[in-house]
Amino acid sequence: MKIQYEDMKSVFSRILLSRGLANEDAEALAKIFADNSLDGIYSHGVNRFPRLISYLDNGRIALSAQATVDYQFGAFERWNGHRGLGPLNACRAMDRACDLAEKFGIGIVALGNNNHWMRGGSYGWQAAEKGFIGICWSNTMPNMPVWGGMDRKIGNNPIVMAIPIEDGHHLVVDCALSQFSYGKLEEYKLNGSRLPVVGGYDSQGKLSTDPAEIEKTWRVLPMGYWKGSGLSVALDAITSILTMANSVHEIGAFGEEVGLSQVFIAIHGAQFSSSDTNSAVVSSIISDIKSSVLDPDFSSIRYPGEREFNTRQKNLREGIPIVEEVWNQILEYTR
Amino acid sequence: MKIQYEDMKSVFSRILLSRGLANEDAEALAKIFADNSLDGIYSHGVNRFPRLISYLDNGRIALSAQATVDYQFGAFERWNGHRGLGPLNACRAMDRACDLAEKFGIGIVALGNNNHWMRGGSYGWQAAEKGFIGICWSNTMPNMPVWGGMDRKIGNNPIVMAIPIEDGHHLVVDCALSQFSYGKLEEYKLNGSRLPVVGGYDSQGKLSTDPAEIEKTWRVLPMGYWKGSGLSVALDAITSILTMANSVHEIGAFGEEVGLSQVFIAIHGAQFSSSDTNSAVVSSIISDIKSSVLDPDFSSIRYPGEREFNTRQKNLREGIPIVEEVWNQILEYTR
Repeated sequence: MKIQYEDMKSVFSRILLSRGLANEDAEALAKIFADNSLDGIYSHGVNRFPRLISYLDNGRIALSAQATVDYQFGAFERWNGHRGLGPLNACRAMDRACDLAEKFGIGIVALGNNNHWMRGGSYGWQAAEKGFIGICWSNTMPNMPVWGGMDRKIGNNPIVMAIPIEDGHHLVVDCALSQFSYGKLEEYKLNGSRLPVVGGYDSQGKLSTDPAEIEKTWRVLPMGYWKGSGLSVALDAITSILTMANSVHEIGAFGEEVGLSQVFIAIHGAQFSSSDTNSAVVSSIISDIKSSVLDPDFSSIRYPGEREFNTRQKNLREGIPIVEEVWNQILEYTR
Repeated sequence: MKIQYEDMKSVFSRILLSRGLANEDAEALAKIFADNSLDGIYSHGVNRFPRLISYLDNGRIALSAQATVDYQFGAFERWNGHRGLGPLNACRAMDRACDLAEKFGIGIVALGNNNHWMRGGSYGWQAAEKGFIGICWSNTMPNMPVWGGMDRKIGNNPIVMAIPIEDGHHLVVDCALSQFSYGKLEEYKLNGSRLPVVGGYDSQGKLSTDPAEIEKTWRVLPMGYWKGSGLSVALDAITSILTMANSVHEIGAFGEEVGLSQVFIAIHGAQFSSSDTNSAVVSSIISDIKSSVLDPDFSSIRYPGEREFNTRQKNLREGIPIVEEVWNQILEYTR
């Protein structure tokens, strides 16, 4: 079945209000989950919404946990998320980074002790929509071996870079540092298919494209092997210093993926030249890559963010596809 | 043969002075080239020095080209390098980013129209040595196909992240977005050996570990396939907007790798907590990854920057190894 975007958002909002969220919080959080669904990231949208509500209902997320600003210095702020509503705190943090960028050219908010932000791309699109360059990343629980190691020690710490284009076709990279997410491995396994490139090690310690074999070891590969491994460690170190909160190995001791550390940077590019000029610059980069000699296995060159933009347009026209049982479960929460 | 660090630096400095550089500039540039050699990055140190001097001698780099500050707003500055001495401009830009970070918590300098910065890691170590978190990247000429393309359209845009530790064991990632540099491919080919992992495509369009086959197509792989490709495009877009200077495709039209665009970000982490605390945080991350269950093919887990640090200590003790002909050629320049 398909649900219209506005209907989905208003159902989400109604449910969140009924759980005691303030009006503005319910609206903002409903928008994040509806937007993620609209862009085709269902795993972190409508399909994840029931779990959020169950966490609120069983008290694992306390509404009293409001993010606090613990330290301010110039264009920098350190926040404590108090393990509250992860996406809401992240959204507020990126908004604040944009405010700081408006004042100082660049702004940075380090948000510690937050819950999972769902889809990192959300906060990139959010910055770009406001005309800012947005860069953000989160650490995670240990879910990947470091280069040379066998057991999971480092995070796949997703990093997001967003560059605004005036007509809304923003260029947005949203990239976990593992070559494949756990969800993707599972998807390939269920389809009985091989990964397009190696994604981890089998039990013999050989690189493999077989998701079932990789799941036996959980030795998943960082993107670019030693390169993604190094970037993961560096991002975790920066995040831990700036938030003064949990590193990946500390999160590993919690037994579940909570108390994450996140960094949000916004840059006020439009202040330095003009948004017209900037859009022209980015558009010409996109035109250039699209003029590539095409690999015969590809039907076109896509720039980062293009697929999400196209899915959004389609879902706005036709409604957001959803499994009927999931939607019925969500509607149950309105009663 | 081996040359002591101080001797190498003073020979470099003497030669640069003889070419008309100001005292301070000659010292700074000599230090960058000597430091790169000291850290074991000979390709961008002593082995590259003769080319620098020939560029000065034949006027391809004009000494009159001094970087100018074209725009200032809060913690942001835009500089024009006027195709002057690339490493010197980059070093000054990172220094300025640190000054801005001291004042605003975070600082950013966008340096357009610069020449090659040699080794990006230099500017990361530089920031860390001053107690700042440093993040910087450069665009390049088009040297890699975009994901789905066959011809070289995007840059391997090296990105650097540096995190200070009090005792000088800074954590520094210096990472081009191609899986292997052209230099590495050449090195493997000359040794007649295979790459440890796939590095590009052969003439049949198959992924290959044979450097000679990859050199036939120059279809080198971005790190993490589509992921590195997306990051490359995003970094180029941010850099081009902030510098208002050349994108990768514009550099491609110059016929040589000049007029590059670079971004330098410094964050004053020590202001927000203390350098002791920060060092303890990073050290505990490093201890944790070093406690990994070791892959039998590895003798130890290394953190990013460890090899450079160890090489530096060794070369400080024993002198910097150098091919005698290269050193003699450099000494010729002193006459």
